Amino acid sequence: MHPILNYVNTNKSRFITELSEFLSYKSVSTDPSFKAEVDHCADFVKTLLTQIGFPTIKRYPTAGHAVVYAEWMHNPSLPTVLFYGHYDVQPADPYDLWTTPPFEPAIREGQIVARGASDDKGQVMCHLKAIETLVRTNGTLPVNVKVIIEGEEEIGSRNLYKWVMDHQEMLSADVLVVSDTPMIAEDIPSLSIGLRGLIYFELTVTTANTDLHSGQHGGAVPNAITELVQILSKLKSEDGIIQVPGIYESVHPISPQLKAEIDKIPHSDALYQQELGTKACPGEPGFSSIERRWFRPTLDINGIWGGYMGVGAKTVIPCKASAKISMRLVHHQNPKEITQKLMDYLKEITPSYVDLDITDIKADFPSNPFLADITHPSITTACNAIEWGFGKKPVLQGEGGSVPIVSFIQSNLGIPAVLMGFNLPYDNIHAPNEQFSLDRYIKGILTISHFLTHFKA
Amino acid sequence: MHPILNYVNTNKSRFITELSEFLSYKSVSTDPSFKAEVDHCADFVKTLLTQIGFPTIKRYPTAGHAVVYAEWMHNPSLPTVLFYGHYDVQPADPYDLWTTPPFEPAIREGQIVARGASDDKGQVMCHLKAIETLVRTNGTLPVNVKVIIEGEEEIGSRNLYKWVMDHQEMLSADVLVVSDTPMIAEDIPSLSIGLRGLIYFELTVTTANTDLHSGQHGGAVPNAITELVQILSKLKSEDGIIQVPGIYESVHPISPQLKAEIDKIPHSDALYQQELGTKACPGEPGFSSIERRWFRPTLDINGIWGGYMGVGAKTVIPCKASAKISMRLVHHQNPKEITQKLMDYLKEITPSYVDLDITDIKADFPSNPFLADITHPSITTACNAIEWGFGKKPVLQGEGGSVPIVSFIQSNLGIPAVLMGFNLPYDNIHAPNEQFSLDRYIKGILTISHFLTHFKA
Repeated sequence: MHPILNYVNTNKSRFITELSEFLSYKSVSTDPSFKAEVDHCADFVKTLLTQIGFPTIKRYPTAGHAVVYAEWMHNPSLPTVLFYGHYDVQPADPYDLWTTPPFEPAIREGQIVARGASDDKGQVMCHLKAIETLVRTNGTLPVNVKVIIEGEEEIGSRNLYKWVMDHQEMLSADVLVVSDTPMIAEDIPSLSIGLRGLIYFELTVTTANTDLHSGQHGGAVPNAITELVQILSKLKSEDGIIQVPGIYESVHPISPQLKAEIDKIPHSDALYQQELGTKACPGEPGFSSIERRWFRPTLDINGIWGGYMGVGAKTVIPCKASAKISMRLVHHQNPKEITQKLMDYLKEITPSYVDLDITDIKADFPSNPFLADITHPSITTACNAIEWGFGKKPVLQGEGGSVPIVSFIQSNLGIPAVLMGFNLPYDNIHAPNEQFSLDRYIKGILTISHFLTHFKA
Repeated sequence: MHPILNYVNTNKSRFITELSEFLSYKSVSTDPSFKAEVDHCADFVKTLLTQIGFPTIKRYPTAGHAVVYAEWMHNPSLPTVLFYGHYDVQPADPYDLWTTPPFEPAIREGQIVARGASDDKGQVMCHLKAIETLVRTNGTLPVNVKVIIEGEEEIGSRNLYKWVMDHQEMLSADVLVVSDTPMIAEDIPSLSIGLRGLIYFELTVTTANTDLHSGQHGGAVPNAITELVQILSKLKSEDGIIQVPGIYESVHPISPQLKAEIDKIPHSDALYQQELGTKACPGEPGFSSIERRWFRPTLDINGIWGGYMGVGAKTVIPCKASAKISMRLVHHQNPKEITQKLMDYLKEITPSYVDLDITDIKADFPSNPFLADITHPSITTACNAIEWGFGKKPVLQGEGGSVPIVSFIQSNLGIPAVLMGFNLPYDNIHAPNEQFSLDRYIKGILTISHFLTHFKA
């Protein structure tokens, strides 16, 4: 038997026990009443790293929860792999929808069920146990390793942006590896090759000092909602093309090679619509719904409010109306540049008698898009590793959402990123009965072991 | 001295005392805790009518507050004047902004200050005291008189629509006279010759079963707010022309005679804007702001809501969004026909994948527009009466708001209406320190006396 398979098989039950212990920490980062539990969880991460034998382990306090950092730099001639994961979890509410208590890990039908099982403790453990496996079987590591395990991912990595900027030199590496994205399905292993970026704004239109009577003044005064509606209606054409000038300039066409890859993914718009209760997949002409979700920018109105929202009638002309709008960015769309183009356009389409106030909600948390170069060797190595771990060649997939800190680390360090996640879309992340299959846990450990063994800078 | 002037002068202080007594009743119709006070106020109205000598006085109970009705039908060869007014008032909150308690009438600088002073007890008293004056000075009335004084005007005359339908024959008359609209200014007596009608709807757009993640699904699913915004943006052109086909068909051009009349009214758009804190008077090209407020239909969005309205960002694609929209109607625009045209248009502009649900909020309370024929003798008689009462020729004015029950009575009985109001825009109706000047009270009594004396069918 392959020594790696042998070691993993022999230690499987301990690996599960250690994951269970990790999952029993109530490391809910958003709720101050869990502060001590988050602290203890950071200590436990240090213990895990110590047991493996990392020569350098440090707990960095921040204004919020600590960053645990470790490195194993044993040979300057070997490439360096930087791993990013997080030990904090989402709140477990509503508790009564859990079959077993969220912080008392249970094993049911091959799944370990607990808050954080998939997001992200189970996947962090794939990396740590892979490193342990390599060290124990070979007496050394095939690469240098750096590990960031933070405690604020579920609250927007508030303090990690600054920490990364402050430790840029320390973090230098040849590749960033993250396991915090899903695979397509149990029988369709996949590798995520992109993330969308995000910009998010609140707009407030003001047209008068006070709400006005629609009878007395209707016809002679501006209506804040009408003005807001006119502005918003000009952001996208009816067929879904964003109207902000220059917005598509840094969006690249989907390469035939990538198109061929994603066309392998089984997908039916009819089933997709049925699942969501929608009656169409409207959007940019010329692109499939999958292409639009993963590789095209979007502009959505996320909220709107103004005037009278109660029961019945109030004959008011509102003087104020607000909306939240956001854009998902792709490829080389730079959040700052796109923000500027959007601001210019909003200014252009706002009538002179309308006051438009804009708040950039995400200004402090830049969320760049990320698209891997699928011809890069790190992608090939990752695909081979998944094939070895899961016994099946992976498909390449995109990811419509954003993991801002990943794009931030990747773009700031100027290194390729590999998004090699092992959870599934129906693993209930952020929901009751979150789970991670023990089978994928072990396959994940094997995959990471293979990747670390074969990665070349 | 003219016998009418003589009688009014002699009895002036009693007229004021009686008005004070009327104003001391807390006849707040909307608040059930005032129910007994509203009842007592209806009794007091009966007492006032009895003192004058009305041969027929009846208190009609309704599902809400009573309607007080009286008639004095003494000579079938004389025309019949139907008066409509109301004895209920708006709530007096906030009490602490009143200089003197709202139901303890005080006289300050020639004004009687109390809730209901202008709206509508003071103006009801102009009619009752004019009738008393004519009876006492001539021993008889120059016309037959019918009087409706209701107790639910401030809550939409809920029960009066049915009552009017049930008593159509009893109410037959040659003219309807109402004093519940303002004059332009202290030194600009005016006669209102129009009211706008009103239709009001709530729209709800649904696009999916649940709110969706804007990253995962953005680009491939409909967004309820975006769809609602697109629909709303098509209701009016940017220069304020309503886009519903056929909506202007029954809107008549403003006659040169009427235009000449309203051009006499001193008005400055700059001052108007300054007062309201607006920066323009946007609206239908080719019409002055006054023309647009009084004699043109409008379409306003009165409220809008959907998606995330809290602090910060939520990356959601909302599945539901709602708005309230209303139209003010003019001239011959029939609420039912206009509603149908609007429904047809909304259906036409709503994409097939969008569910649009529409609630007709005012369906049970039809609000027709009203425009007097300014060449009708009742208008001339009213103008002459105001000139006699106020010592100055009145200007004709429109009214942008709606008094649905007035248009309803007028159109159901098929008689002309005279809107001869005596309060001023700054008399604080519906606000603290409501007032009515004693000078206008007396001038109102004189005006109504003159009108009743000279009215010919």
